[in-house]
Amino acid sequence: MAEVNNKQIVLKDNIGAGSPKESDLITRVSKINLNVPVGPNVILVKNLYLSCDPYMRSRMSKYEGRYVESFTPDQPIVGLGVAKVLDSGDEKFKKGDLIWGLTGWEEYSLITNAHAHGLFKIEHTDVPLSYYTGLLGMTGMSAYAGFYEVCAPKKGEFVFISAASGAVGQLVGQFAKLLGCYVVGSAGSKEKVDLLKNECGFDEAFNYKEEEDLVAALKRYFPEGIDIYFENVGGKMLDAVLANMRIHGRIAACGMISQYNLEKPEGVYNLTQILHKRIRIEGFLVTDYYHLYPKFLEMILPYIREGKIKYLEDTAEGLESAPAALIGLFSGRNVGKQVVVVARE
Amino acid sequence: MAEVNNKQIVLKDNIGAGSPKESDLITRVSKINLNVPVGPNVILVKNLYLSCDPYMRSRMSKYEGRYVESFTPDQPIVGLGVAKVLDSGDEKFKKGDLIWGLTGWEEYSLITNAHAHGLFKIEHTDVPLSYYTGLLGMTGMSAYAGFYEVCAPKKGEFVFISAASGAVGQLVGQFAKLLGCYVVGSAGSKEKVDLLKNECGFDEAFNYKEEEDLVAALKRYFPEGIDIYFENVGGKMLDAVLANMRIHGRIAACGMISQYNLEKPEGVYNLTQILHKRIRIEGFLVTDYYHLYPKFLEMILPYIREGKIKYLEDTAEGLESAPAALIGLFSGRNVGKQVVVVARE
Repeated sequence: MAEVNNKQIVLKDNIGAGSPKESDLITRVSKINLNVPVGPNVILVKNLYLSCDPYMRSRMSKYEGRYVESFTPDQPIVGLGVAKVLDSGDEKFKKGDLIWGLTGWEEYSLITNAHAHGLFKIEHTDVPLSYYTGLLGMTGMSAYAGFYEVCAPKKGEFVFISAASGAVGQLVGQFAKLLGCYVVGSAGSKEKVDLLKNECGFDEAFNYKEEEDLVAALKRYFPEGIDIYFENVGGKMLDAVLANMRIHGRIAACGMISQYNLEKPEGVYNLTQILHKRIRIEGFLVTDYYHLYPKFLEMILPYIREGKIKYLEDTAEGLESAPAALIGLFSGRNVGKQVVVVARE
Repeated sequence: MAEVNNKQIVLKDNIGAGSPKESDLITRVSKINLNVPVGPNVILVKNLYLSCDPYMRSRMSKYEGRYVESFTPDQPIVGLGVAKVLDSGDEKFKKGDLIWGLTGWEEYSLITNAHAHGLFKIEHTDVPLSYYTGLLGMTGMSAYAGFYEVCAPKKGEFVFISAASGAVGQLVGQFAKLLGCYVVGSAGSKEKVDLLKNECGFDEAFNYKEEEDLVAALKRYFPEGIDIYFENVGGKMLDAVLANMRIHGRIAACGMISQYNLEKPEGVYNLTQILHKRIRIEGFLVTDYYHLYPKFLEMILPYIREGKIKYLEDTAEGLESAPAALIGLFSGRNVGKQVVVVARE
């Protein structure tokens, strides 16, 4: 009987406000039998790469009315990953297939309702497999949908991106540059600012922690105002952006990471600018745009092969490093997409 | 020489924050010669009806970055009105035409650049002329554009309207009912609440001044949440609405009257709901939609003729009553569209 160890990352209990801690997550070893045939609509996978994403913070708490459900205490947490199918009871997948989508933070996962789960079969393997946790997965699709679909950008427009060195922000900036926009990003360290300017081709970037007056900082970089704001931060930054928007400006709200750990969110005061400047703010969730995935791949794969997209990964080796990798996300420790390597094949 | 008296309402000086007062406006009598031929692109009009609109508050102050310019001190203030053309140097208009659009708060106005000024010739006179200051003018177009174009409503959706007894709010509610939506409005007095329920056909209405907890009040009227919010108020009401929105909800921001007189606007705290519920908020200005005016008339004129639209006017007689009428708007004195009758023909 091929019962093997199955290392898992488990949530101790749903947490309240405040920064999550590594100790909120427990590493334990369960057993799993790899030889029991899976039932209909179930697949057994070996997890290869796991993605650390900001939205996972919400799932650690027990909140009502969120767009994702809370993690279940004492169960492996769930996130996006790349995995190899070991056995399949789902007609869409077969043994040996590589897939990306929602899986468990463990070495092996039984994924029930695989079809409905939004798993994608990986068809192109001439690019790094880990990219499907980000650039070729939800991260890339978020940047694509948020920028092209929500922001409706035009060549020459003025684009600002907060948390720009994050996985989605870097991509949005590069998409905007490829379209011929003027692009400025904010980030939280000199290292990240340098990355944006020197590696990602942003026109400008600044460290928001060094700016006493965010309204003035944005005015400096956008003397004529901002056409498009790709919002990852919320709170004070959103307020400062509102004061600097141009008429018919668009704000795609992808995240508001500055607000997730607060007991009470920050107030935003400049909302009358929505009227004065006829601004559109739109929150979006990438899953609403997954039908565009083939169109996205058609655009992005040539860019990747031609080296036109700079994509940085911050790789943590081994499932045991996963808690630190995830928690680090909320203190801005990572540079680029945070990936956990569970196994390389 | 037909020099006649020309009574005028003049702004004493641009005002700061706080409620405007009647004494900020001065009534004076100038002279105008009605027999001097007007130059090219100029028309001379006799003003018949003037419209009091909330946005005029902004023009009384001297602010930068507004969507309208400040009123010029010691000059007649400017607003929407219905007028009769006495002489025309503009090919689009001829003597005897009735028009609606921007005109001066005075008995007679010389309108320069009439063509560019966005004046509309009145073609249908089987309905009350005063309606062109509101229902058939900017008010009606605001309701039409904001509801149909910005909110993209569907039959059966849950619609909330703040300042619902105002000119635009009443109409939006009726459009929503005609489409088959569930409609609730808020207003600031029992009289207004009764009007909404008994005259305008709203499903429900409530007096926001009697609600200690706006979030709870909205939850009571919308146990399943709000699909569409027609925003006239801003601040605390917007915050409470955000907490009650449904997934893919839409907010059309037409005004934020609660914020105009504040030294510092109120903070709004629930903006992360934009993400959680994938909400779209969009500020709009009716002038961006004036190309739809013929389409709007096509819809609204039959409704008016068939008595399917309830439209209330609050009429002040004589130009000398205009300052009180305008100032009353900001304390919620009026019920329905505030019109000043300068002359009936």
